[in-house]
Amino acid sequence: TMKSAASAFLVDKGNYRHFMAKEIHEQPEVVGHTLAHYVDFANERVVLPDLPFDFRTVQRVTIAACGTAYYAGLTSKYWFERFARLPVEIEIASELRYGDAPFTPGDLSVFVSQSGETADTLATLRHAKANGHHVVSVVNVPTSTIARESDVVMPTLAGPEIGVASTKAFTCQLVVLACLAIAAGRARGNLSEDDERRLVRALIEVPRHMTAALALEPEVEKLARDIAKSRDVLYLGRGTSFPLALEGALKLKEISYIHAEGYAAGELKHGPIALIDETMPVIVIAPHDRVFEKTVSNMQEVAARGGKIILLTDPQGLAEAAVESLATLVLPHMPASVTPMVYAVPVQMLAYHAAVIMGTDVDQPRNLAKSVTVE
Amino acid sequence: TMKSAASAFLVDKGNYRHFMAKEIHEQPEVVGHTLAHYVDFANERVVLPDLPFDFRTVQRVTIAACGTAYYAGLTSKYWFERFARLPVEIEIASELRYGDAPFTPGDLSVFVSQSGETADTLATLRHAKANGHHVVSVVNVPTSTIARESDVVMPTLAGPEIGVASTKAFTCQLVVLACLAIAAGRARGNLSEDDERRLVRALIEVPRHMTAALALEPEVEKLARDIAKSRDVLYLGRGTSFPLALEGALKLKEISYIHAEGYAAGELKHGPIALIDETMPVIVIAPHDRVFEKTVSNMQEVAARGGKIILLTDPQGLAEAAVESLATLVLPHMPASVTPMVYAVPVQMLAYHAAVIMGTDVDQPRNLAKSVTVE
Repeated sequence: TMKSAASAFLVDKGNYRHFMAKEIHEQPEVVGHTLAHYVDFANERVVLPDLPFDFRTVQRVTIAACGTAYYAGLTSKYWFERFARLPVEIEIASELRYGDAPFTPGDLSVFVSQSGETADTLATLRHAKANGHHVVSVVNVPTSTIARESDVVMPTLAGPEIGVASTKAFTCQLVVLACLAIAAGRARGNLSEDDERRLVRALIEVPRHMTAALALEPEVEKLARDIAKSRDVLYLGRGTSFPLALEGALKLKEISYIHAEGYAAGELKHGPIALIDETMPVIVIAPHDRVFEKTVSNMQEVAARGGKIILLTDPQGLAEAAVESLATLVLPHMPASVTPMVYAVPVQMLAYHAAVIMGTDVDQPRNLAKSVTVE
Repeated sequence: TMKSAASAFLVDKGNYRHFMAKEIHEQPEVVGHTLAHYVDFANERVVLPDLPFDFRTVQRVTIAACGTAYYAGLTSKYWFERFARLPVEIEIASELRYGDAPFTPGDLSVFVSQSGETADTLATLRHAKANGHHVVSVVNVPTSTIARESDVVMPTLAGPEIGVASTKAFTCQLVVLACLAIAAGRARGNLSEDDERRLVRALIEVPRHMTAALALEPEVEKLARDIAKSRDVLYLGRGTSFPLALEGALKLKEISYIHAEGYAAGELKHGPIALIDETMPVIVIAPHDRVFEKTVSNMQEVAARGGKIILLTDPQGLAEAAVESLATLVLPHMPASVTPMVYAVPVQMLAYHAAVIMGTDVDQPRNLAKSVTVE
């Protein structure tokens, strides 16, 4: 679009070949900036702008977004449910917009959009507001229409994102949504001060873990050579790794034009396992969390059918994953609450390097615009 | 599995080459049987078993299922919201099972499973029940564990389903869920007696429309020859045609091993449109309903990028779809409330004929079992 072309003049690629590479590598820094905006590092507390509503009286949260921002929202559904015991409905904005979902006045809607101009998201925002919902938005452009029309704006401090495939905006969205979910959990009495401290400490460690994840780049690049030869790829995950599987598949689709698809690992046996043969790489996102064993059992089924597995896990996961896998990417051990932000990094790098190897136009993939301001 | 092998001795294929073909063609009949169980034809009313709860006091409905049954549940979310103004959370059972979604006592959970033995669905049922939810199940085997453990069982009268890829069970699930949503709408005062009559009349017409849809088989078979040559296929839809796009893609995956994926048409521009080129068939499910125009605009984007379109629509849709499409399947005009049941028929036939042309084992596709009784 004109807008990103204009910004491209102001923001340069530094030493990177593509904006996308630069933006992937900026993540420890911009996630740090975003955290500094929502976290009191000294006291290990979440600090939000004043909210014009009380989380204790909110009965239900509606989250709506499109594309990558939708997957950030879907991730946060797990957090709102876990940290705050709040029922969350997550909706594709273009579906919510023309559906009949009831909005109860006094409830909360959260809208996520990098540009803050996404047409379908803006339309659902207006609908929610007209129906008496409190409206919080998570946007990267604080002067955007969605920001202006929200009751509360929670900006991501990702800086300008030029690559069409969103990377740093996504991980910053996750950080902001995690802070909001923690605040909800505290307000509702579901999290203690100690719980909050523990969760905030985990967030503070995210930039450091991201740096460790970035150091996997040579290994990721090697794996990307295999991916680049594939026509179809599956991504699997459970829990918060399920939205990341969807996001990983979307990244690969967007810039490499490989038909990748993300699936909840538990759904594998209900259909997609029929696709598995020796030519199909399957990327399994499985930190050693409470669903790890279940994911490994799905991975074993893939292996039994000859699927080529790339496993993203941590040292404990590596030790316990009793399966012959093509390759493993081992990330640092970290609390389950922050794996989505950190595991996003190798997932993004894999798509990036596959696309570079294939020679596509990484920053301006065919058919895509940076902001979808029409329906 | 042993079970379906055993049933196979008792149920024969009649004049059909495969159980799946037979089951597709049985749909007008078994949908009629199922309707007869839940509808008073003379008075055009929905008649349900006694419910041990009052829909007026239900705040929220949780629907959980796996695979095809999940897509039936997702379809009914639109109906519950529209007919009854009830908030619905639809969940993949394997995700709900290990998540932290709060269950408010007195609310309603609905579980959908052909076999009634799906492990993840059963586990979530027990969890919902332990948390004070009323439990309704929609199953095809009334002696199943899920049926036995439910407060209310609403059987589908599809008869034994032998083909691993579910067809007639799916459309019967839709009919049962539609009746439940109508009953909810009446109980909550959101539907008038006239509304109910109008909706029931539409349901009564479903078998007749299905017969008309089955008559499209020669055309569908011709289109299947193109599909059978493809390695990747996209299915698009909005509203209740979105779950059917997901189901259509799942059918094709299951039995032809073609990598098909379903998408909400509004999400196309947020990524998957990058996949579109001259080799990619895109199946667009677009009856002339209130989102028709929006879907057509997405279809035009596909056409502009050279995508080969197969459009499923009705005479009015055909007249108004200003796009050069590869092929059109024209179904009868019918109320929007019943398009999912009827449009399912060509979607199933397309997958069936593609698989037959490719020579796969249609009734026992590789890697798949009929009932997933393990995780």
